Amino acid sequence: MSLLVRGGTVVNADRSFRADVLCADGVIKAVGPDLDAPAGAEVVDAGGAYVMPGGIDPHTHMEMPFMGTVACEDFESGTSSMLAGGTTMLIDFCIPAPQQSLTDALDQWTEWGKKAVADYSFHVAITWWSDRVAQQMAECVDRGVNSFKHFMAYKGALMVDDEILFKSFSRCRDLGALPLVHAENGDAVFLLQQQLLNQGITGPEGHALSRPPHVEAEAANRAIMIAQTVGVPLYVVHTSCKEAHDAIKRARDSGLRVYGEPLAQHLVLDESVYYEKDWDLAASRVMSPPFRSKEHQKSLWDGLVSGSLQVVATDHCAFNLQQKRMGQDNFTRIPNGTGGIEERLKVVWHFGVNTGRLTPNEFVAVTSANCAKIYNLYPQKGVVAAGADADLVVWDPQAQHTIRQKAHHSKLDVNVFEGLTVTGVPRVTISQGRVVWKDGALDVRRGQGRNIRRPAFAPAFKAQTVWNERTRPHPVRRQVQVQQTP
Amino acid sequence: MSLLVRGGTVVNADRSFRADVLCADGVIKAVGPDLDAPAGAEVVDAGGAYVMPGGIDPHTHMEMPFMGTVACEDFESGTSSMLAGGTTMLIDFCIPAPQQSLTDALDQWTEWGKKAVADYSFHVAITWWSDRVAQQMAECVDRGVNSFKHFMAYKGALMVDDEILFKSFSRCRDLGALPLVHAENGDAVFLLQQQLLNQGITGPEGHALSRPPHVEAEAANRAIMIAQTVGVPLYVVHTSCKEAHDAIKRARDSGLRVYGEPLAQHLVLDESVYYEKDWDLAASRVMSPPFRSKEHQKSLWDGLVSGSLQVVATDHCAFNLQQKRMGQDNFTRIPNGTGGIEERLKVVWHFGVNTGRLTPNEFVAVTSANCAKIYNLYPQKGVVAAGADADLVVWDPQAQHTIRQKAHHSKLDVNVFEGLTVTGVPRVTISQGRVVWKDGALDVRRGQGRNIRRPAFAPAFKAQTVWNERTRPHPVRRQVQVQQTP
Amino acid sequence: MSLLVRGGTVVNADRSFRADVLCADGVIKAVGPDLDAPAGAEVVDAGGAYVMPGGIDPHTHMEMPFMGTVACEDFESGTSSMLAGGTTMLIDFCIPAPQQSLTDALDQWTEWGKKAVADYSFHVAITWWSDRVAQQMAECVDRGVNSFKHFMAYKGALMVDDEILFKSFSRCRDLGALPLVHAENGDAVFLLQQQLLNQGITGPEGHALSRPPHVEAEAANRAIMIAQTVGVPLYVVHTSCKEAHDAIKRARDSGLRVYGEPLAQHLVLDESVYYEKDWDLAASRVMSPPFRSKEHQKSLWDGLVSGSLQVVATDHCAFNLQQKRMGQDNFTRIPNGTGGIEERLKVVWHFGVNTGRLTPNEFVAVTSANCAKIYNLYPQKGVVAAGADADLVVWDPQAQHTIRQKAHHSKLDVNVFEGLTVTGVPRVTISQGRVVWKDGALDVRRGQGRNIRRPAFAPAFKAQTVWNERTRPHPVRRQVQVQQTP
Amino acid sequence: MSLLVRGGTVVNADRSFRADVLCADGVIKAVGPDLDAPAGAEVVDAGGAYVMPGGIDPHTHMEMPFMGTVACEDFESGTSSMLAGGTTMLIDFCIPAPQQSLTDALDQWTEWGKKAVADYSFHVAITWWSDRVAQQMAECVDRGVNSFKHFMAYKGALMVDDEILFKSFSRCRDLGALPLVHAENGDAVFLLQQQLLNQGITGPEGHALSRPPHVEAEAANRAIMIAQTVGVPLYVVHTSCKEAHDAIKRARDSGLRVYGEPLAQHLVLDESVYYEKDWDLAASRVMSPPFRSKEHQKSLWDGLVSGSLQVVATDHCAFNLQQKRMGQDNFTRIPNGTGGIEERLKVVWHFGVNTGRLTPNEFVAVTSANCAKIYNLYPQKGVVAAGADADLVVWDPQAQHTIRQKAHHSKLDVNVFEGLTVTGVPRVTISQGRVVWKDGALDVRRGQGRNIRRPAFAPAFKAQTVWNERTRPHPVRRQVQVQQTP
Repeated sequence: MSLLVRGGTVVNADRSFRADVLCADGVIKAVGPDLDAPAGAEVVDAGGAYVMPGGIDPHTHMEMPFMGTVACEDFESGTSSMLAGGTTMLIDFCIPAPQQSLTDALDQWTEWGKKAVADYSFHVAITWWSDRVAQQMAECVDRGVNSFKHFMAYKGALMVDDEILFKSFSRCRDLGALPLVHAENGDAVFLLQQQLLNQGITGPEGHALSRPPHVEAEAANRAIMIAQTVGVPLYVVHTSCKEAHDAIKRARDSGLRVYGEPLAQHLVLDESVYYEKDWDLAASRVMSPPFRSKEHQKSLWDGLVSGSLQVVATDHCAFNLQQKRMGQDNFTRIPNGTGGIEERLKVVWHFGVNTGRLTPNEFVAVTSANCAKIYNLYPQKGVVAAGADADLVVWDPQAQHTIRQKAHHSKLDVNVFEGLTVTGVPRVTISQGRVVWKDGALDVRRGQGRNIRRPAFAPAFKAQTVWNERTRPHPVRRQVQVQQTP
Repeated sequence: MSLLVRGGTVVNADRSFRADVLCADGVIKAVGPDLDAPAGAEVVDAGGAYVMPGGIDPHTHMEMPFMGTVACEDFESGTSSMLAGGTTMLIDFCIPAPQQSLTDALDQWTEWGKKAVADYSFHVAITWWSDRVAQQMAECVDRGVNSFKHFMAYKGALMVDDEILFKSFSRCRDLGALPLVHAENGDAVFLLQQQLLNQGITGPEGHALSRPPHVEAEAANRAIMIAQTVGVPLYVVHTSCKEAHDAIKRARDSGLRVYGEPLAQHLVLDESVYYEKDWDLAASRVMSPPFRSKEHQKSLWDGLVSGSLQVVATDHCAFNLQQKRMGQDNFTRIPNGTGGIEERLKVVWHFGVNTGRLTPNEFVAVTSANCAKIYNLYPQKGVVAAGADADLVVWDPQAQHTIRQKAHHSKLDVNVFEGLTVTGVPRVTISQGRVVWKDGALDVRRGQGRNIRRPAFAPAFKAQTVWNERTRPHPVRRQVQVQQTP
Repeated sequence: MSLLVRGGTVVNADRSFRADVLCADGVIKAVGPDLDAPAGAEVVDAGGAYVMPGGIDPHTHMEMPFMGTVACEDFESGTSSMLAGGTTMLIDFCIPAPQQSLTDALDQWTEWGKKAVADYSFHVAITWWSDRVAQQMAECVDRGVNSFKHFMAYKGALMVDDEILFKSFSRCRDLGALPLVHAENGDAVFLLQQQLLNQGITGPEGHALSRPPHVEAEAANRAIMIAQTVGVPLYVVHTSCKEAHDAIKRARDSGLRVYGEPLAQHLVLDESVYYEKDWDLAASRVMSPPFRSKEHQKSLWDGLVSGSLQVVATDHCAFNLQQKRMGQDNFTRIPNGTGGIEERLKVVWHFGVNTGRLTPNEFVAVTSANCAKIYNLYPQKGVVAAGADADLVVWDPQAQHTIRQKAHHSKLDVNVFEGLTVTGVPRVTISQGRVVWKDGALDVRRGQGRNIRRPAFAPAFKAQTVWNERTRPHPVRRQVQVQQTP
Repeated sequence: MSLLVRGGTVVNADRSFRADVLCADGVIKAVGPDLDAPAGAEVVDAGGAYVMPGGIDPHTHMEMPFMGTVACEDFESGTSSMLAGGTTMLIDFCIPAPQQSLTDALDQWTEWGKKAVADYSFHVAITWWSDRVAQQMAECVDRGVNSFKHFMAYKGALMVDDEILFKSFSRCRDLGALPLVHAENGDAVFLLQQQLLNQGITGPEGHALSRPPHVEAEAANRAIMIAQTVGVPLYVVHTSCKEAHDAIKRARDSGLRVYGEPLAQHLVLDESVYYEKDWDLAASRVMSPPFRSKEHQKSLWDGLVSGSLQVVATDHCAFNLQQKRMGQDNFTRIPNGTGGIEERLKVVWHFGVNTGRLTPNEFVAVTSANCAKIYNLYPQKGVVAAGADADLVVWDPQAQHTIRQKAHHSKLDVNVFEGLTVTGVPRVTISQGRVVWKDGALDVRRGQGRNIRRPAFAPAFKAQTVWNERTRPHPVRRQVQVQQTP
């Protein structure tokens, strides 16, 4: 069956224009003025609204086993929630335990993903190293994974050291995959945690105090050095502070391909919550990196404007209050994570577009198109154009909405944006050519989501070989041929 | 008559894909795989080639009266030359003399432009100030001019002071026009020139010595401050050095909309030419800003990669040796200007794409798409898409070419890139849907070029109102309403 | 008569040590442990206290004619006030009116200075230009003036343009004098003032709104460029904001000799006062640059710690409420200036040393020794050492004091630090070997102050010739000898 | 016996002045004009010369066991060599093997040091960690060691990880000691070495290729983060490149107490030597960090001018050609180290003072006074003043000297400055009040050198508690008292 989105203004990353959008068979068939609705086509009224590519959230953790529990959001509830917020695809993290086979883990996550009501894809984390891991990275790439994540924090659990980073980044380079890092110096965090606990600080404020901005910036800077040495691009997840952003800017200013991803939460919330008297309130905001002081927010927004930061994500990782209370006597045991997948677009529109910081086109860029390009999904995703997947959001820039936990579609029993009134909301969300969100109601089907394969990069990466111009070998003795990246 | 470009890979700023391109009536009718050629259609073979939007050079001075002479390139020869190089549009500078009516000057330039063999458009320079000038700026905008240039150098001739910059930038803001600056501190240049002449330095090396990088950077920094104060974007023409680029980066890093334009010449040529013994050779390279020492080139290239610089232009302004010799005894009388409009694409491809610095998509961005967006020409220009003007270049990435003055299509008797062998050349250039360059031969018609109107900006500029966050007025006494830009 | 300061810890910029200090004939005769008091010597008990060189305030305007009135502090009251605060010398600005002879003005100020109760010296301002001015600069140098100030603001009054800056800086270089700048872009300030008045904003908040940080930073950056071009050091007075400090840091980071001077006021007070409902309170804080938002203070303190800023001054320029009310209906007519000469040391100690930011030695550096070195007064002033002038302050680091207008020694009817309680106060001040402040009482004599001559620099400036390495001329044709600064 | 240095210009870090210097009993007794020579005093003619505090080299490795051999310079030859160059004290590194007792190692080095002909002192390296190490650090401090070094490179040998850095830095903070780091990422170096060897690159050029600037900068940045987190100052040894210097500048710009030490070698020599065809020549220059490309030198010199770098050292570590040849087939086995202790002052004077970059006072600061202050030796060392040790150099700024291996006083069979002609040499060196170098001849006595104890810091370090303002804890729940450094 076909579907016609009529009367709206199409907003892509490169331009806006008045056009109707005709969808059929899950893809966009035509984009143009005054299209005729085929017989039997469903018509969606986009009058007074923007028609944009559905959001893509490249950083989520659905039903993730972590810190002795499992995130309470599953792929079904999580993808439902995201559709209600205008986001039509997510990329989740498959995280093998140390010593676990990567492909076994990927099998596991793939199985879990089958519950999803909208499209999804997987990054795979590198949490240990061996020749078998290197080999399995290739198998993952064959299965549509073109990005591998590395935790520089969570000492004793997921953290990997510089030697593994170097080897895994090198492997990424050879496979045409993109390395990602969670940038925090895990040793420093661990030792600060011990100090704070020894000082008797056991509450959520200890979480913020144990992960200061410079500890994040250090790790970002270190990962960039390794990427530069190896000759591979780098993507820094949840860039939360000015200092880490500065490290990314320094890299980009020397011509390196380094990407930074602020979260919607860090753009508008701040660390004062960790000092709230209400333990539940404070603990429910515990995530890593923690919310920062207000001064960091300008840096993140400026980065989105100038292009030194490219993608807004959420790191949606839902732990309910009962789970949070595992750390009641010890902040290091509070499961790390907050929600936001349903609110991301509203928050970025309200504080980004309504304030004049971002144009609507830039909004599309940072919530959808850039992500699609960086992860090699473009133009299947990230653009309203004939041939693209029919994942759309019809955005009403005038409608108001107050964010409430009791009205959200996540399983979480808290909402970090509780009470915030925004202007600009998704009127209709379309996934695979079907209306899934309209008039405040979801119409989703478990298992409808597809696991989207993302092919390895090739020509784009060839361009990277000149990155590390400074390490370009000089003519060497004995006629030995040195490659660009030594 | 229609024209089918068959078998190539379309390269736009956002992606590359295999597609044929069908043109008719001067515009692109369809872009897709395996298009059928309509009856009688001319077919262009793009096998093994890239099909890209024709280049746009936003910085030229055709037949410009300057320094007591007139640039020897006219609109006919200049636009012919550019087509031979794959560039299908230019934006020239209409420069009223101080006290001259803006619209009179625009009439004059419009008349001269009628000789053009391909599309063109005009910036207008603000070289003096009065209420009448402010009024005529509006008239220019009505005639399709959305950008006004300001010379901060050429003291006693074109230079304007900070008060005029402030007033004209404010006027641009109100009109939805973009201010441009030639950034060099004219006072410092003038006094350095006097010093050098007094020291007996009269040769072309004096030109370089009188315009050091920090003199350019200062002016860029100052213009940015005024734009920030006024609340308007800014475009800095011919950014030639690291220090000026740094000023632009500082601005962008605080969220300001500031654009920088390196020239093809500054990307690859350096100041050593001014010390050549051959006076003619040295003098033929005299332009402002002068070529810089090699260390600045990495900064410019890195800026194109990271996005802190957006557009590569040429400042094509042709003075032949006879004209250059006006300054034989005094470098300050050497007419300033060099050519390059035909070589720009080749040079950027060879040193940008072949080295791996830029992807082909980024090549399109910096030579065409970004320029079209910044000057509100997009998507009429700057993209290969249905509905766009059929201005295309079929680029052969394997073909080699050695740049020679005797083979170029400019009237200039010198070529600053003489002897440079590049890989990657325009196989075919298409202008308004017609093949104008093929097999090394031009097929152009005088007067075929159109004066392309560029409408004023509106919504995009609204976004600028948050720029100067730091000057955002605090709540003021007596309930006076303060606007964003005080 | 001789005087022995006994039992204290001498604190110099380079070290601290237990020693007595013997003074006679206005100079220090000996510094060492357990000195014997000569017969009849007065003994000052410095037990538990620091014995430091008296403060030097290099930026004051006593009885200055300005904005249609005359600063109400004269040299007698001003120098008395400073002694009560532990400062034993000031450098005041002799400001010739445009077209006025420099030496005539210097005669005038010299005459006024004769009332002083402690040592003083003069800078001379360059407010216009002619060959006669250039000549009189040499005469000023002969009279002990080694520093010339330039106003980049106060358009239509004291402001000079870039050509004058260039010429005067060149003259300074040749005379071995140090150029100073008041860095604000006067054109931008003037036009912002007009805008604000047109918008009906007439109160003191308009003062802050008309002089934003980037307007100051621009001027600092421009003056630095001119100093770099000319090849002379530069001293930027009243550096008030992060952005201007950044410009200074950029210069220093490229090896230029540029100095920055924050004021005690800017280190601790902020712009919120301009939005106070009490007009008198707000107006009494009006000075240029205005107080800034709190975020700038960290930058200034950090600069004092790292050495990128060197001297803390006050710009003491006293206008009482009656005078301030000249601008009751128009903030541009509020005489610019605040007091602070008596409080400077206390404020810097309290917020600098007590917080641990600065060591006591660094306190001496930024309040006395650096200033003495920069203005060629060292080691006559700025150090506790045999042979130096016996200008000392015996500092009690434990004593508390609450700053009150009614208790201060200035003629001003307001104190910008009103109500601030500090720890660390001058127990005794010694000027020319005589106790002038003790037990909260002054014992001063009108006319006792001396006009201290400061000789021109010579060898120190030779070091500057490599500054502008980047402009160092290449080998030039025709064997013309090019000097370092072309 | 006493000694009078007559007729010279005393140059201290803070000023220069004409004075004679009287020494007796190993210390300076008087500094003043026209001093009388006591009966029997030896008189040194300093006419036309500068009398400066003897140089201090804080970075040497005499007779160090390293990489399977022992540095061929012993304390006797090394200190002799340094006296011939005007340096009168060194601080050597006592480097316990992993698992070795710190105090045992210190005993060993102390024994070796007894051969010295001039004063010396010791840093101790932390190469492993345990409670016993922490305890022994206190014992070292009791024995006059106030600085501990940490190697971030030499994986598998001396390298320590972030956890040890954190713990040892914390211990330094508590003991009032200064942590030092050799900043290179040992993992990256190790893996690059393997890559290069695998590619067949075995010559000295591999040394440079395996240790690029960003690998050094990363480690500096990381050590700074840890020092900031812990709340302790940091000293970065042998800062060799712009990027590492930038990391130091960022730290200092945020108010941190971080010091950087360029080597004389890195200031003037460059990496091109590693590509020399003569293996011996190339290998004899192998040290870590390696010499860098020329562009880095400007950054290092600018840092000495602006104060962002404070001390010039040599890392004198002598391996002769026979030793170097251990790495003939594998650059990773070439013992790392070069000489320079005799040439340091000449090289810094020639390229620093003669070019006008540094004043003579700044020369004293970077070669002697700053080092004495940072290591708590001041004013015993580092200044020409009554009471200070009589360690002096009489510097002839006019005399020329060509550096030759065959004429130097080191045991090394190569000199990295071979053939360099400098202007400015030590005419006379005085150690402990005795002439030890004069007329090109040494007069030294084995064992005359003293092990100089350096007391722990106390008040100076208290000032550090505000460093990490950003991590300053907010008011926390449950009234738990949080210290400044959490």
